[in-house]
Amino acid sequence: MSKTPRAPGGRMNILFIMYDQLRHDYLSCAGHPHLHTPNFDRVAAMGVRFTNAYVQSTICGSSRMSFYTGRYVSSHGAQWNGFPLRVGEQTLGDHLRREGMGCWLIGKTHMRADVDGMERLGLSRDSVIGARQAECGFDVWIRDDGLWGEGPDGFYDENRSPYNEYLKSKGYPSDNPWSDFANAGVDENGDIASGWMFANADKPANIREEDSETPWLTRQAIAFIEQADEPWCAHVSFIKPHWPYIVPAPYHALYGDNHVPGASRHPAEREDPHPVFGAYMGNRVAQAFQQDEVRRKVIPAYMGLIKQCDDQLGVLLDFLERTGRIQDTMIVLTSDHGDYLGDHWLGEKDLFHDASVKIPLIIYDPRPSADATRGKTCDALAESIDLAATFVEAAGGKVPDHIIEGRSLVPWLNGETPQWRDFVISEYDYSPTPHCAELGLQPRDARLFMVFDGRYKLMHAEGGFRPMLFDLEADPQEFHDLAKGDGHEAETERLYGYLAQWGRRLAQRVTRSEDDIKAMRGRSARKGILPFLVDGTEVPDELTEKYRGPAPRRYPGDDA
Amino acid sequence: MSKTPRAPGGRMNILFIMYDQLRHDYLSCAGHPHLHTPNFDRVAAMGVRFTNAYVQSTICGSSRMSFYTGRYVSSHGAQWNGFPLRVGEQTLGDHLRREGMGCWLIGKTHMRADVDGMERLGLSRDSVIGARQAECGFDVWIRDDGLWGEGPDGFYDENRSPYNEYLKSKGYPSDNPWSDFANAGVDENGDIASGWMFANADKPANIREEDSETPWLTRQAIAFIEQADEPWCAHVSFIKPHWPYIVPAPYHALYGDNHVPGASRHPAEREDPHPVFGAYMGNRVAQAFQQDEVRRKVIPAYMGLIKQCDDQLGVLLDFLERTGRIQDTMIVLTSDHGDYLGDHWLGEKDLFHDASVKIPLIIYDPRPSADATRGKTCDALAESIDLAATFVEAAGGKVPDHIIEGRSLVPWLNGETPQWRDFVISEYDYSPTPHCAELGLQPRDARLFMVFDGRYKLMHAEGGFRPMLFDLEADPQEFHDLAKGDGHEAETERLYGYLAQWGRRLAQRVTRSEDDIKAMRGRSARKGILPFLVDGTEVPDELTEKYRGPAPRRYPGDDA
Repeated sequence: MSKTPRAPGGRMNILFIMYDQLRHDYLSCAGHPHLHTPNFDRVAAMGVRFTNAYVQSTICGSSRMSFYTGRYVSSHGAQWNGFPLRVGEQTLGDHLRREGMGCWLIGKTHMRADVDGMERLGLSRDSVIGARQAECGFDVWIRDDGLWGEGPDGFYDENRSPYNEYLKSKGYPSDNPWSDFANAGVDENGDIASGWMFANADKPANIREEDSETPWLTRQAIAFIEQADEPWCAHVSFIKPHWPYIVPAPYHALYGDNHVPGASRHPAEREDPHPVFGAYMGNRVAQAFQQDEVRRKVIPAYMGLIKQCDDQLGVLLDFLERTGRIQDTMIVLTSDHGDYLGDHWLGEKDLFHDASVKIPLIIYDPRPSADATRGKTCDALAESIDLAATFVEAAGGKVPDHIIEGRSLVPWLNGETPQWRDFVISEYDYSPTPHCAELGLQPRDARLFMVFDGRYKLMHAEGGFRPMLFDLEADPQEFHDLAKGDGHEAETERLYGYLAQWGRRLAQRVTRSEDDIKAMRGRSARKGILPFLVDGTEVPDELTEKYRGPAPRRYPGDDA
Repeated sequence: MSKTPRAPGGRMNILFIMYDQLRHDYLSCAGHPHLHTPNFDRVAAMGVRFTNAYVQSTICGSSRMSFYTGRYVSSHGAQWNGFPLRVGEQTLGDHLRREGMGCWLIGKTHMRADVDGMERLGLSRDSVIGARQAECGFDVWIRDDGLWGEGPDGFYDENRSPYNEYLKSKGYPSDNPWSDFANAGVDENGDIASGWMFANADKPANIREEDSETPWLTRQAIAFIEQADEPWCAHVSFIKPHWPYIVPAPYHALYGDNHVPGASRHPAEREDPHPVFGAYMGNRVAQAFQQDEVRRKVIPAYMGLIKQCDDQLGVLLDFLERTGRIQDTMIVLTSDHGDYLGDHWLGEKDLFHDASVKIPLIIYDPRPSADATRGKTCDALAESIDLAATFVEAAGGKVPDHIIEGRSLVPWLNGETPQWRDFVISEYDYSPTPHCAELGLQPRDARLFMVFDGRYKLMHAEGGFRPMLFDLEADPQEFHDLAKGDGHEAETERLYGYLAQWGRRLAQRVTRSEDDIKAMRGRSARKGILPFLVDGTEVPDELTEKYRGPAPRRYPGDDA
């Protein structure tokens, strides 16, 4: 692999851009019929678009912890939003700094610090080590998780909001301008029309477009890059197009009824559904999205939010071109999961249909080694954990595969066809949701696993339920759950075999690399551990030297 | 459960005694025909002897890390000797101190500190926190792992040896009196007859009996207890009867040929053996133990070492009775694994025949709640990880079952019959051994799993091998590997199902308890996260209060 020394420190940078809740198919390069995203397409034309990329969990926090650790959810253990990432779990920051690359956060992580664990180890946020532990391994340029909701029990997010501080500095007169301006319109009576209510999704957000979240964070990214003077990985992590679904003018008015695709759903899905699927179809967000008027209001706003993301991506790309950084910066565009938007009678994410678990993934590698693949797509089964491995390799390191479970995508970028995985895994832990109690489960059993081999997709649910099974070749829309009937036992068994194989994976042997282990062999014999000798003649003399010779003189009191 | 407040601090203490490599059946209470162990039997008569107790791994270090963390080997990740226990992994010390109980080490742990992890988190051994991290959570009264072997590359153990310091202080004239006196005899020429050579196992160790390792550590345990003034858990961890197989007079001469049972082995085992079993049958220690003259020398020494352990246990029990501690101290006797001693054509431990994986486990609980079970046996499937849970409960705490995977044995001690596990798991990672390369495996595939349901025992080997299967009802000696032929597919599949279920277990969600999770439900809605409303009428007004009311006055520059 050639290493083109064009970065500020003589090496490549990594611009790791994440959108939140961006569906894999809401980009023109992915075939969306109405949403034109020329800047996403521009990166796709410069790099490789992965058409079978999956997240390790369909919930923000857990999915992100997998991106940042390169490890499956059951390996890092932060299985839902607000479940702290255990202290000491290694992240991108640990791996990249070891290669001399900075690792910076600009935006959202949804990471909860393991406060108890830090206290147990005596770590304080005031120290560099403690601050990184508390921020998922990143050095923080700016952190804003973009969910400044407030209710009778106070704010959801107890951190400070740099974005709210920004709006206040610009004169927005509110204690929580994120809520009152950026994520609300004004109704006909002059009252707040909150973006939380789908009924308001067609209104423009009551904010100057340039002050809304996506342009604001884009400027933060540019400001970071302008001052950076070492090779860097910058995680630019937008909150959008995640809900609240409301967008400032002119984006609120770009799309209308005629741009809203029909919901991808089928009456067969509601006939004797899997109990977990059934529970999710009955929840409030699903019921809302089952109404056509909700889809007709929300989806144009969702598209407007994406269009704004695309325009801002253009701003960022222009900046990179202007400054030459485009030549020494790897660019990654992805998302933490999708959005059902009424497909499969569901809203939000959570389950494993492609609308939810499949993500956009576009990688531009500036090195000549990747010239052969520019503008191509790759249908290999990619997992979100692969990015951590990809970044370590891009930073010039050897992937610590005793810690990072993902695999570097660099060979694909170089046009190679490496030996690859047979299946992808995703997980969802719904223990904190009402569905857990509703289904009569204890928190430890409210867990789902997806196994997908490129054609068949199995969902296993703990708690004694039957699985779900889809054949995406015969049924690409995933309407017909084959596990309801007979005739697919062999496929089910095969995918369960993959799940079992994955369950036995090597996930926690993180203190010894494969190379370390090979080097250990025979070492104890050379340090005098010889539990296998009849008389010592079995091994070279040097191993037993310390155990031969005249017995030392008798000890005091020895009367033998 | 009644709590009898008789301990120094008003609570119970725990005396957690571990022997090393003590076979489950080398005790008179377990039916050994020649080895009389009245003091083990005395504790068995006071408490409960568990007749189906298994270790989580058949190698010292990994097995011990499971005892100390209450977690399976694949959960804590310290999969072989010298594989550091990752920093931050919680141990008995963390759990018991939370309940106000000290947690002390007197003897061996075979723990390797995660030096890299500690450095990454800025932890130093000089601090209390760092010292505990480096010692597996224990406060150290005395640590001595009892393996002071020395070869051309120096000492196996880089720590200081308090035992060697003791011997030197008593006038033993050697740089390594552990090697030259405690674990060596003198041959007819006056030369060292090292205990490493099986040929010397019938000689007396060249040391005063009172200065040998077992009496020395027993005195350390007594000294600890004499000064303890808070409720304590003391892990008194003997190196014996672990090799080197040599014992001082008079124990070297107590047993002879007539006390050595025939090897439990069968020609069928050598016919087309499982490749991993085959590899182990061919190694040096196995070949040595296949010689009857080796067994005839080694086994009497092994029995002598156990007899000495029993006598010293008597010393300790007498001390506890004399001081009244017997009334407020739970006593646990166990081992980290067994010893093949030539059974199944093998030496050492490593594989999963009962000789290796089954352990003695005797628990005396002084509380009246346990009166009904004194002197009884319990055949429930116990795992070594159960002790951590048992100790937390004995200390008055609630078992943190999101961290500790074992289950408290206290109900069994109280004569109850709790809902219990269907199978036990043990693991063995042989990646650092020559067998890994010999079988053409990469280190990550050199792993074995045992599943035992009380009757059938399955061994699964990664790397594409067939399994092994034994029916311990029809074949209690485990001679006939049923997986060689047909006819047992249903049992194999059932046990593989257990293994798969275990593979999906909840092992790393350690930062959130089940109770925490239940308490989380609905919390985000009360903190203003409302991603499911059409118009807000779906929820109580208080949840949307912050999102209603007159829109704030226009912001500077707003010309709408």
